Amino acid sequence: MRIGIVAPSCPLRREAAERVTAQAAALGAELVIHPQCFLEDGHFAGPDEVRLTALREMMADPGIDAVWFARGGYGSNRIAVKAMRDLPAEAAKKTYLGYSDGGFLLAALHKAGLRVAHGPMVQDVLRDGGEKATERALKWLVHADPSALEPMLDGPAFAFNLVVLSSLMGTPLEPDMAEAELLIEELDEELYRVDRFLFHVSSQPGFAQLRQVRLGRVALKDNDRPFGRELEEVVRHWCARAGVPFAGRADIGHDAANRVVPFPLRHAGAALS
Amino acid sequence: MRIGIVAPSCPLRREAAERVTAQAAALGAELVIHPQCFLEDGHFAGPDEVRLTALREMMADPGIDAVWFARGGYGSNRIAVKAMRDLPAEAAKKTYLGYSDGGFLLAALHKAGLRVAHGPMVQDVLRDGGEKATERALKWLVHADPSALEPMLDGPAFAFNLVVLSSLMGTPLEPDMAEAELLIEELDEELYRVDRFLFHVSSQPGFAQLRQVRLGRVALKDNDRPFGRELEEVVRHWCARAGVPFAGRADIGHDAANRVVPFPLRHAGAALS
Repeated sequence: MRIGIVAPSCPLRREAAERVTAQAAALGAELVIHPQCFLEDGHFAGPDEVRLTALREMMADPGIDAVWFARGGYGSNRIAVKAMRDLPAEAAKKTYLGYSDGGFLLAALHKAGLRVAHGPMVQDVLRDGGEKATERALKWLVHADPSALEPMLDGPAFAFNLVVLSSLMGTPLEPDMAEAELLIEELDEELYRVDRFLFHVSSQPGFAQLRQVRLGRVALKDNDRPFGRELEEVVRHWCARAGVPFAGRADIGHDAANRVVPFPLRHAGAALS
Repeated sequence: MRIGIVAPSCPLRREAAERVTAQAAALGAELVIHPQCFLEDGHFAGPDEVRLTALREMMADPGIDAVWFARGGYGSNRIAVKAMRDLPAEAAKKTYLGYSDGGFLLAALHKAGLRVAHGPMVQDVLRDGGEKATERALKWLVHADPSALEPMLDGPAFAFNLVVLSSLMGTPLEPDMAEAELLIEELDEELYRVDRFLFHVSSQPGFAQLRQVRLGRVALKDNDRPFGRELEEVVRHWCARAGVPFAGRADIGHDAANRVVPFPLRHAGAALS
């Protein structure tokens, strides 16, 4: 199995690439790391066109079985709409894995009918205990190991970083999640912002069609003043207001324990509306 | 003229209330400060129901000519949908003034057919040189002084904090800004976040119908890494992508120079869709 690595957001660190290459080899897989991963253009791993071209090369390459996003940060939204246009036939034969800022691409490629999953990325190996995250992702990509999956999945499910999901709402990339469950996670936001993003996401007409919501891990920044409500209370508030059941916690987040959530396969060829 | 003050977001400081009361008196107006303004409930100036009730009392009071929001912070989104329901007849006879987090209410009340404007709030008096901001707001409320207006207005215009506008998109509060110009301002966000919010806002179908966009003042927080693009370049990028002309700078922002932008009067009685 050959796994293509591209960086649609921020640059990959070489140390992470080397360590995960060795992990993949031990599982009998080969990482094909696009040199674009190490480019730097301000915030991004190269200019928009260069990141897009690298992604599309991997999507079109018949020698690549899966495309794994190197890391998040910010920037995949800048290429997501173009990434789903004029898809090469080879693109539909691969699996795409990532999360965090990579959620923009998960949404876009899923909307284009491709097989995507929310899960650990290459640079997660640098987290505390992060080898477990990348090994889990590799076992899922290489062996479809079910132990990599979020353990409570029992039907169609989507998983997103809350801010990314908020940024998808109303755009051509907004996912159709009717009848599915939604898992959300967040990093480095104050609770008042989490409340505002939940207001935004739960006020969308599509949110009311969810089967249920579960809450992954949320690493909060301190509020400038005590918010006066706990995180879970806030999530329950907005779910209740939208009439969507809150079904407890989910085993996803910006950490080594982050599990894989494959999105439901959409009818291939379903076009960007 | 009697101007009602309520705090739909965070609590008002007494010092601000006293100083602006004196400014209003000098202009022949009376501030009617709802005691709710000084409540504290965690982040908010009282619980949602209490803030909503205070606002609705002011809206219904025939002795109040204008409703002026005490300050921003966060929280008016939690009461905005309810604030526009079952409007008392008196509500349509008043002007509503605020900005920042108050933009949620501007959107809601505008959508309900009321007369709203984006401009300084009471607590702005505590900014550096802030008496000028509150005096400008008062002169506009009391005398409709045209010198208070944003100087380049030449047709229907809306003004919003960028994050607030992003949080309105796709919700029942999303403003219909077709053929109008949009003025945006921002505070305390990193440039990569501004870029993301601009992606979100400019990817909405309604954005493409704007006549033009102007950029108010944006007080950026440092990026975690250099973004590699300047603010105005970023705004031009997203406007160009959506096919909307960028028409330069606007004289609004979280500062003492913030000018007033009245929203175009919508057919009264236009209901929440």
